[in-house]
Amino acid sequence: MKPLMTVTLAGGAKTEVLLADDIKDLSAHLGGYGRSVVWVFDSNTNKLFRQLPPSRIILESGESAKNLVSLERIISLALDEGLGRDGRIIGFGGGVVGDISSLAASLYMRGCRLTLVPTTLLSMVDASIGGKTAVDFHGMKNMIGTFYPANEVLISIDVLKSLSEREYKSGLAEVIKHALLSEDQELYKLLLARRTEILDREEETLMKLVELSLLVKKSYIERDPTETQGIRKALNLGHTFGHALESSTRFSAFSHGAAVAWGTVRALEAGVASGITDKKYASAASKLFGSFGYDLDHRIGRGEWIEYRNHLSKDKKKLGGEVQFVLLRGSGKPELHPLPWNLIQSLVMEKAIGRG
Amino acid sequence: MKPLMTVTLAGGAKTEVLLADDIKDLSAHLGGYGRSVVWVFDSNTNKLFRQLPPSRIILESGESAKNLVSLERIISLALDEGLGRDGRIIGFGGGVVGDISSLAASLYMRGCRLTLVPTTLLSMVDASIGGKTAVDFHGMKNMIGTFYPANEVLISIDVLKSLSEREYKSGLAEVIKHALLSEDQELYKLLLARRTEILDREEETLMKLVELSLLVKKSYIERDPTETQGIRKALNLGHTFGHALESSTRFSAFSHGAAVAWGTVRALEAGVASGITDKKYASAASKLFGSFGYDLDHRIGRGEWIEYRNHLSKDKKKLGGEVQFVLLRGSGKPELHPLPWNLIQSLVMEKAIGRG
Repeated sequence: MKPLMTVTLAGGAKTEVLLADDIKDLSAHLGGYGRSVVWVFDSNTNKLFRQLPPSRIILESGESAKNLVSLERIISLALDEGLGRDGRIIGFGGGVVGDISSLAASLYMRGCRLTLVPTTLLSMVDASIGGKTAVDFHGMKNMIGTFYPANEVLISIDVLKSLSEREYKSGLAEVIKHALLSEDQELYKLLLARRTEILDREEETLMKLVELSLLVKKSYIERDPTETQGIRKALNLGHTFGHALESSTRFSAFSHGAAVAWGTVRALEAGVASGITDKKYASAASKLFGSFGYDLDHRIGRGEWIEYRNHLSKDKKKLGGEVQFVLLRGSGKPELHPLPWNLIQSLVMEKAIGRG
Repeated sequence: MKPLMTVTLAGGAKTEVLLADDIKDLSAHLGGYGRSVVWVFDSNTNKLFRQLPPSRIILESGESAKNLVSLERIISLALDEGLGRDGRIIGFGGGVVGDISSLAASLYMRGCRLTLVPTTLLSMVDASIGGKTAVDFHGMKNMIGTFYPANEVLISIDVLKSLSEREYKSGLAEVIKHALLSEDQELYKLLLARRTEILDREEETLMKLVELSLLVKKSYIERDPTETQGIRKALNLGHTFGHALESSTRFSAFSHGAAVAWGTVRALEAGVASGITDKKYASAASKLFGSFGYDLDHRIGRGEWIEYRNHLSKDKKKLGGEVQFVLLRGSGKPELHPLPWNLIQSLVMEKAIGRG
């Protein structure tokens, strides 16, 4: 295990991000924690181990397991195993496993130790650092949660090889989003220059990609650990449009990342329409998304608009009754703006004007 | 409303403690928050209002409502009312209402605003400041919770008049506990000098009592906001013995405070037996408890010992497998120590040696 970076959050809480050579290296590290642990897998990630640890929960894979019932299962097991506040929950999986495991760790005896092993690109570059924990509630994504940074995040690039194309692309969308949020162009250039290697999941390239992507996220969350300063909200670029799409399509048609890619392109268009985003920049950025094969042309049917709008209205980024959208003044220059409903409708329901 | 004190916790979060002239003053202040609020009452505290606010949850009074179902009810209502992260949950009641309301506020959209109006002496001097939130789980007290300080705590002394004797005495035990944890003797002296006025709930005396008691708690929690330094654990004086008594008697025979009074006297005896607590000091402190009429002589029956021990073993103050007890080197000089099982058994099961 090699230290990759340290992320410092609210109250000085630190997350150590460590890089493993491979799954074996990872297992050896985790084995060192002994018996005061509870492991959380999903029905895919449990297959990464030939022999599973005895104290474990295996969640159904997918968003539908991200609920209070799963949370109770983990906490019950921790209690049965006699874990104290110095006990550890190990979340071994993608964003769903990570978010629930983190919430369980933050709630169990008001906080026990937490290790996250992200097994998807999405959770590696996004969910595993920053301390956001969550379950869905009444069909609303992440309505219940806390801020509780993991003590450590263990990254093993080799697990990315076994991801489905859909899952891999889901993570890649957040990487591209991070590239647009970075003032330096390093990540953006890597995405342009190494498209083939990235799509082929070439290990060296992925290592660089993950590191650069994490550095962008780190720079935003360290300045605003509990999302109260407005800075961290920038990471929600594409998410307000995208979450509502995910919700109104019941989390099936679009992966999270595919929805974010779609949502980010909508946000770029909204920025152009509002005179905030340069048209050429928006066009180039949309083209970058397009080059990785996302469905950016999808439009909401007329019969679905009311539901879509309801989901938008309930967005957590709402402040004082108005939904705030992240728009881009340029690369690395996010701003929060409300948008008029007729503009939103024209962007999500019809072929939008101004897309490249 | 007059500012009484400001408590600063993790990450600089501040709780303003305000003193109301009376319930009317309180209502006027709360009315100023408009409609983006959800009120939480219990089936006693709702009677303090002639006309209840429309957006409200009324919990069954008592510990049995302190569960995940109540939590879900509050969060559902907040969602139905369209509260954003800038919305506010108002917990109007004793410790149970306060703990659940606080947990709901900490979880709703990863944190919304929170006002606590403690209506019992116990919640005024203890639960309402410090940011501990909780529900019980599988019969274990406060197993699920977070740290989430209220934005404001509103104190109206006149509500104490309507408390039952049992409820009032429950709070008074925590006040006496605070007196033992304070290095200066002001609170201890007040308790000795004004016993009659205190038992008569004389308003001026209570105001002083609440303020001094809050100052003791503030001094401990500000030095250790998330109970990681060992300092804050001192506030659990009497609670390890006491919680296990509450749990094993199913939260009915003893009020929380009565159990803490009993537990504190057991901790004083344990301190004497371990050579940590001066015998005369322990005797005087036990006498102070006795003068307010607590049942300090209760003993666990032989058939209940296993259950009592099991509850002790699951205590949250366990670290590295060993239960830590708060013992007193002297007034304001708490220390954490493990205790041998045979000593514990002799203290809780038989007439103990060395009690004054």
